[in-house]
Amino acid sequence: MIYANFQGLDPNQELTEISVRRCCFYPERIGADFITVRGFEIAQAASPWAPPTADQPGMLGTHWSKGWIIEDNILHDAKCSAVSIGKEYSTGDNDCTRYRRKPGYQYQMEAVFKAVHRGWDKETIGGHIIRCNRIYDCGQNGIVGHLGCVFSQISNNEIYNIGVKHEFFGYEIAGIKLHAAIDVQIEKNYIHDCTLGTWLDWEAQGTRVSQNVYADNDRDLMIEVTHGPHIVDNNIFASDYCFDNIAQGGAYINNLIYGTMRREPILDRTTPYHMVHSTVPLGTAFVYGGDDRWYQNIFTGGQPIYTEQSVAGTAGYNGHPASEEEYCFLLKSEGNGDHEAFDHVKQPVFIQRNCYMKGAEAYEKETDALNGGDPNIYLEKDGNGLYLCISLPKEFFIQKGKVITTRDLGMPRIVEQRYETPDGAEIVFDCDICGERRKGAVLPGPVSILKAGKNRIRVWDQFR
Amino acid sequence: MIYANFQGLDPNQELTEISVRRCCFYPERIGADFITVRGFEIAQAASPWAPPTADQPGMLGTHWSKGWIIEDNILHDAKCSAVSIGKEYSTGDNDCTRYRRKPGYQYQMEAVFKAVHRGWDKETIGGHIIRCNRIYDCGQNGIVGHLGCVFSQISNNEIYNIGVKHEFFGYEIAGIKLHAAIDVQIEKNYIHDCTLGTWLDWEAQGTRVSQNVYADNDRDLMIEVTHGPHIVDNNIFASDYCFDNIAQGGAYINNLIYGTMRREPILDRTTPYHMVHSTVPLGTAFVYGGDDRWYQNIFTGGQPIYTEQSVAGTAGYNGHPASEEEYCFLLKSEGNGDHEAFDHVKQPVFIQRNCYMKGAEAYEKETDALNGGDPNIYLEKDGNGLYLCISLPKEFFIQKGKVITTRDLGMPRIVEQRYETPDGAEIVFDCDICGERRKGAVLPGPVSILKAGKNRIRVWDQFR
Amino acid sequence: MIYANFQGLDPNQELTEISVRRCCFYPERIGADFITVRGFEIAQAASPWAPPTADQPGMLGTHWSKGWIIEDNILHDAKCSAVSIGKEYSTGDNDCTRYRRKPGYQYQMEAVFKAVHRGWDKETIGGHIIRCNRIYDCGQNGIVGHLGCVFSQISNNEIYNIGVKHEFFGYEIAGIKLHAAIDVQIEKNYIHDCTLGTWLDWEAQGTRVSQNVYADNDRDLMIEVTHGPHIVDNNIFASDYCFDNIAQGGAYINNLIYGTMRREPILDRTTPYHMVHSTVPLGTAFVYGGDDRWYQNIFTGGQPIYTEQSVAGTAGYNGHPASEEEYCFLLKSEGNGDHEAFDHVKQPVFIQRNCYMKGAEAYEKETDALNGGDPNIYLEKDGNGLYLCISLPKEFFIQKGKVITTRDLGMPRIVEQRYETPDGAEIVFDCDICGERRKGAVLPGPVSILKAGKNRIRVWDQFR
Amino acid sequence: MIYANFQGLDPNQELTEISVRRCCFYPERIGADFITVRGFEIAQAASPWAPPTADQPGMLGTHWSKGWIIEDNILHDAKCSAVSIGKEYSTGDNDCTRYRRKPGYQYQMEAVFKAVHRGWDKETIGGHIIRCNRIYDCGQNGIVGHLGCVFSQISNNEIYNIGVKHEFFGYEIAGIKLHAAIDVQIEKNYIHDCTLGTWLDWEAQGTRVSQNVYADNDRDLMIEVTHGPHIVDNNIFASDYCFDNIAQGGAYINNLIYGTMRREPILDRTTPYHMVHSTVPLGTAFVYGGDDRWYQNIFTGGQPIYTEQSVAGTAGYNGHPASEEEYCFLLKSEGNGDHEAFDHVKQPVFIQRNCYMKGAEAYEKETDALNGGDPNIYLEKDGNGLYLCISLPKEFFIQKGKVITTRDLGMPRIVEQRYETPDGAEIVFDCDICGERRKGAVLPGPVSILKAGKNRIRVWDQFR
Repeated sequence: MIYANFQGLDPNQELTEISVRRCCFYPERIGADFITVRGFEIAQAASPWAPPTADQPGMLGTHWSKGWIIEDNILHDAKCSAVSIGKEYSTGDNDCTRYRRKPGYQYQMEAVFKAVHRGWDKETIGGHIIRCNRIYDCGQNGIVGHLGCVFSQISNNEIYNIGVKHEFFGYEIAGIKLHAAIDVQIEKNYIHDCTLGTWLDWEAQGTRVSQNVYADNDRDLMIEVTHGPHIVDNNIFASDYCFDNIAQGGAYINNLIYGTMRREPILDRTTPYHMVHSTVPLGTAFVYGGDDRWYQNIFTGGQPIYTEQSVAGTAGYNGHPASEEEYCFLLKSEGNGDHEAFDHVKQPVFIQRNCYMKGAEAYEKETDALNGGDPNIYLEKDGNGLYLCISLPKEFFIQKGKVITTRDLGMPRIVEQRYETPDGAEIVFDCDICGERRKGAVLPGPVSILKAGKNRIRVWDQFR
Repeated sequence: MIYANFQGLDPNQELTEISVRRCCFYPERIGADFITVRGFEIAQAASPWAPPTADQPGMLGTHWSKGWIIEDNILHDAKCSAVSIGKEYSTGDNDCTRYRRKPGYQYQMEAVFKAVHRGWDKETIGGHIIRCNRIYDCGQNGIVGHLGCVFSQISNNEIYNIGVKHEFFGYEIAGIKLHAAIDVQIEKNYIHDCTLGTWLDWEAQGTRVSQNVYADNDRDLMIEVTHGPHIVDNNIFASDYCFDNIAQGGAYINNLIYGTMRREPILDRTTPYHMVHSTVPLGTAFVYGGDDRWYQNIFTGGQPIYTEQSVAGTAGYNGHPASEEEYCFLLKSEGNGDHEAFDHVKQPVFIQRNCYMKGAEAYEKETDALNGGDPNIYLEKDGNGLYLCISLPKEFFIQKGKVITTRDLGMPRIVEQRYETPDGAEIVFDCDICGERRKGAVLPGPVSILKAGKNRIRVWDQFR
Repeated sequence: MIYANFQGLDPNQELTEISVRRCCFYPERIGADFITVRGFEIAQAASPWAPPTADQPGMLGTHWSKGWIIEDNILHDAKCSAVSIGKEYSTGDNDCTRYRRKPGYQYQMEAVFKAVHRGWDKETIGGHIIRCNRIYDCGQNGIVGHLGCVFSQISNNEIYNIGVKHEFFGYEIAGIKLHAAIDVQIEKNYIHDCTLGTWLDWEAQGTRVSQNVYADNDRDLMIEVTHGPHIVDNNIFASDYCFDNIAQGGAYINNLIYGTMRREPILDRTTPYHMVHSTVPLGTAFVYGGDDRWYQNIFTGGQPIYTEQSVAGTAGYNGHPASEEEYCFLLKSEGNGDHEAFDHVKQPVFIQRNCYMKGAEAYEKETDALNGGDPNIYLEKDGNGLYLCISLPKEFFIQKGKVITTRDLGMPRIVEQRYETPDGAEIVFDCDICGERRKGAVLPGPVSILKAGKNRIRVWDQFR
Repeated sequence: MIYANFQGLDPNQELTEISVRRCCFYPERIGADFITVRGFEIAQAASPWAPPTADQPGMLGTHWSKGWIIEDNILHDAKCSAVSIGKEYSTGDNDCTRYRRKPGYQYQMEAVFKAVHRGWDKETIGGHIIRCNRIYDCGQNGIVGHLGCVFSQISNNEIYNIGVKHEFFGYEIAGIKLHAAIDVQIEKNYIHDCTLGTWLDWEAQGTRVSQNVYADNDRDLMIEVTHGPHIVDNNIFASDYCFDNIAQGGAYINNLIYGTMRREPILDRTTPYHMVHSTVPLGTAFVYGGDDRWYQNIFTGGQPIYTEQSVAGTAGYNGHPASEEEYCFLLKSEGNGDHEAFDHVKQPVFIQRNCYMKGAEAYEKETDALNGGDPNIYLEKDGNGLYLCISLPKEFFIQKGKVITTRDLGMPRIVEQRYETPDGAEIVFDCDICGERRKGAVLPGPVSILKAGKNRIRVWDQFR
């Protein structure tokens, strides 16, 4: 017998659906490579909860394979996850719940190493393309995936209404929730009205979040227990709560950060890092916090504050050294000992040429920060286009920014890998959110062509 | 020009030796397998410092190879290490000192993973036999080895006067200092007059220390940042400072513990653990402390205390639960959350049928502990034999112990591997330090045949 | 609708069974380790065809796992295989039949390498124990297994009536059919009334067939496309067609060979060989034939000849050099060039102290062969015992054999691995088929205690 | 004492040099990554013989490392090899010569697998760039490398006078000699006056030879025991003996083939193939011959014939089927059996729109071949430029070729990998040897812009 809560509606009058399909399109067997799913509407599956320590089926999913293309689909009403590019069961399947021997965290660590032992690599896993889909009304995720997501590209999707019915409580809920998103590229998506827009957890090494628009989310972005190099550039984060930065080693370039950022070190869990552009493990490390690069972003203040650590701007980095030289000097002054010195001394940060408006505050050692009043930022939908409205004073145009490149960014302290493309090429951050090339002096923020006064800029297009 | 300090002696009158040989017998190339070194006296080499994060040459050494036999040699006066079964340079060579980018700890972690990537496994590395050697008068180690030592056997050696000139300061000094001593068996050695007798650091998984005599060392044994299963059975630890237990998941059976034990958790470093009897990594973890088994040991009190945490007996485990059921109950009462509960609740310990003499104190939940007065323990050399003298009251013989086997010991919490032989066979702990088989009721301590009153037992023989 | 052929019987009068169960006990998921199946009767499953290039389910099976114990069961009437310790689908599943792109042979080669890539190793796969089972009346195999069988032990089983209904045509049919039986030990089984008793195909490296009785099979043993070291010792092969030796690098010691042997080189397929006691691949090679050791076997002649190459005795090795020195000399005389010389010169064989009766013929360079008349060999069942009856002349006892050990056998030319136990220990071939230790002068054949005249020896016991 | 042959010259009058330097710039240790060698003249080293089964030092070399750039150097007078990007000793060092146990071929096979075991992969080895160097007057190679060469780029070099003193006899001599040149790109080089221009031996998987000029070599190109996909496009081969095609699975597009081609199957050696764009091994296979694609090349006849199998044009493929359908039909008609059918039936070839001049002959099933008279081809040096002179009749321009792309080429039969770039992107063969983009109808040969009558085209430039 099934009991159902119809919340005052008469089920005899209304349309009632009982969803019993676990998946709509999901291979029974692993290793079904190079499948293209194009042009479908796929909906109403009772896909089960898909955490990183279990088998992760989705309404639609790749089941531990390589090279799928999922494009031009409309995907909605999955009980948990619409699209899964995650792991299968043999590296662990809810073992903490079953055995209570070790924390889920420890089983997740083992899942990574078991996956390595079972051939998790670029040769056989991941490299999927998920583009131009509309994904909405799901209980857990628009796109989910631990391990199986590596080397994938997620672009030009619209993802919304994920987790907002609050059917489930806890971790793992977001528009896009990836673990071990090694070299994953998340570009030109419009992610809105989610409890959390995008959550990159563990091993976001080589990951890039670029040219996306986030809006009307409870939180826009969370990056957790990873050591870099990850790149967040040319995005618009338009929600009040912009960013949970529980990571280190990031590069944040030419973004518009409307809301607040929270930072926290993690010294009671270590997570893996890997050889350059590879799944081969090289070590595990804590998140000490810092080691971040912030160049030419726009921050605005005045939004509601949801946590004690929430800050508008980069003032939360106060207390960190501003260069590697300063960091090394501080390390040396700790005297003998080994890791203890590295535990005590805060990691350096590299923060320059950002613009702080409406009360957002700059890092104490940023010498070339720009300040301004209220830019009155909002987004406007008009037909298939999404428009950024922003009002800028003349002073905004004084600052002489530059086109940032891989060479300007160095390497994270722990993971000795450059901020570069998945195939090791240099990145020149000259392409703005509209696809325009930056020339000459570079303005802060994701839009390169702006004028004093009010601007209305098409920043996303449903059919591009 | 060389400046030398002759400490008041006249170098023109005395014998002066300038040692410039880096090694006496050490292959230039890696992979020189299955070499036997038998019956030599090898001495006076200026072997350099051999830490786990560098190339580790010794006066005599295996240089990243497999299957050596080093037996019946007299090895002495190595500047640093007499015998090296350690690592080579390509997985790291003093990178912390060179680059100061990361702590030595982090580079050591990377060395393990780089070694895995370069084929560190049972098929090609380790499995050496070092037996019946006399090793003495060295600055750093009698035997040293990181990674290269796996699956080796070290037995019937006499090792002494290691580190006692205090030429060097710091870590890595001991009669035997091994890192990643996976499945290494250390048996029937006599290790005395060292600053530290044996130091097992990182990944002492499957390691066994059995039937050895430790005496007159500043410290006898240190086991550090490893998660078990390691076995310490049927040994005599006769120094005042017996044991630095900076580990978890150990089984300590039928030992004589004359001196004190210090315990400490390590929550600011994680170290790897591996698949069963393998170098394949499975995760990294903290040392929470506890998860130890102590059965049928003899402890004596009354020795000087060198650290705040030093304790004679097992009373230092007070506060730990005494069973897995109690542990699980405590975990559940922590409520929701993941690793946090495991961080808060102390790991269980399994402590039974030990004998506490001369003031050594039992773990609070040990129900069948035996207590006694001063057994007046000392060791006596006589010809080639070493004799244990111990005086026992009648009450000592009341206790009915049993022959412990692999089945009695379960598995460590984190590393799900049994306390068994390197080839996976069950161990029956029925062989005492003299080579006698235990029958019927089992006495505490390493000697199975004892009488009330004074006993004088031959526990080591130079030429066995 | 189902059409059935009842062969003149009335299905309404007789018992009719339609078997539709694919498996009786077979985990759905891979990696279900350490399961014991003890004391069952398991029968009537429609287990599908289980070739080495496909998923290999059996009526009972381990499905790509580790450490099962299958003992004391009665297993019968499987459509194809009663017990499977074979591979799963992800390394290939009938790809030749599906795609016709490459031969099955090539896909099988790829299956081995894909398995290596996916973690096929001692740490996670094989090591099963199958003992004391009765297995009969199956269409394809009593026990089957590619890759998943490594490091297993198959002992004290009775296997019979396998393939004798001739429901299927083609390869892969035998009492025991294993591919890649690395370090598998097949001991003390009684295998009779099969189309083929035991078939070891590809990579029988470190495999040992010892103390078994084969009788009343169309063929007793086939070893195919493997390079040694494999050991066949102390067996009774009592069928007319004893042995298809399509291999090289074998050691055959103290067997009784009643029937004929066929030998053939394979120069149009290469198969892998591996690191010592490991699944790590080291190369692929042809079967040139030869490189065999034959010591102290008894051969009898007079049986029907089924192929042109069938020979009673070792005379089929005529033309091969009798020592490594002779082989090297012949190689050198081929002049310059590389592999061509190795292709032309036959590999050496090592044949000594065998006994040839009833017309069986010795290798031309065997200097110490013993010859004799008809020993009138037969087997007799009596209660639970199986008895070998053999009549021997006085001359049989003249020959002074020796206890062969690992040291007498050298290493195969291609695979540089000794004829030793799976854990690398030396083998002393002093235990005869009855479990008696050989002492002093050693007689040819598997029974160590014999007298002139008629002997009746208990060689197998159903309940041992 | 040194004896020297001065060939009639007086060493007291002439300049005499005794070269004793093994190397000029070669790291002692492996793993010295990311070194740039730019702008040097390096000469006169007594670099030893560098075969694929030994340590392979060169006058200048990378010694088992990653990511070097060697550019704008003048490198000459190395006794053996000028530049080595080859292997180190630990995977084998002249073991055939030392031990005579197995052929060099077998040791080379083992070297590949040992290298895999020791971490030979894209993460740590190869990926070198060697460009714009002038390399000449060496005894064995301009550039040599087994295993260490993977994923490298060799472009815009001039290499000449290699091996022409005939100091050494035997294999391994060529301007460029690579083994296991996985994904290596050889582009825009001018290789002349060598005994052999370029020799790609074993595992030339994903290798591309494009836009090079070969002239005045004893032989221009040899590709040996490899299974594709390799690409040879837009080159000029101007020597009399163009190509030893001892391979299968090649794609030959828009080349000018002045001389003859020899083809031979290899059925007595198998060589490895690998996962796509990876060093992970997937199997070993014979070279059956065929499975080649020849599109839009120009062949000319009339050159001297050096071997029985030498043919001008593609008529040597007569007897091969012309499509996969025909091949499959022939396979089926072989009946039951496995690899035997694949051994008997010749592999298909795909040959279209080539131009055969001056007596070169077309494959019998090529339906759209173009024929013509003598184009009077020669090369002319003029300043820094190299010019191709070719005279074409009007009929040459009738043929309507097309721009070939990855999609037109399918996959080799054995290695299921597309003819694509190292990072998996499609190739559009629209760029001619001069760097011009092809548009509209495509002419045969490497030059896209030609006219009827005599043409003089700049095809190489020393300072580009």
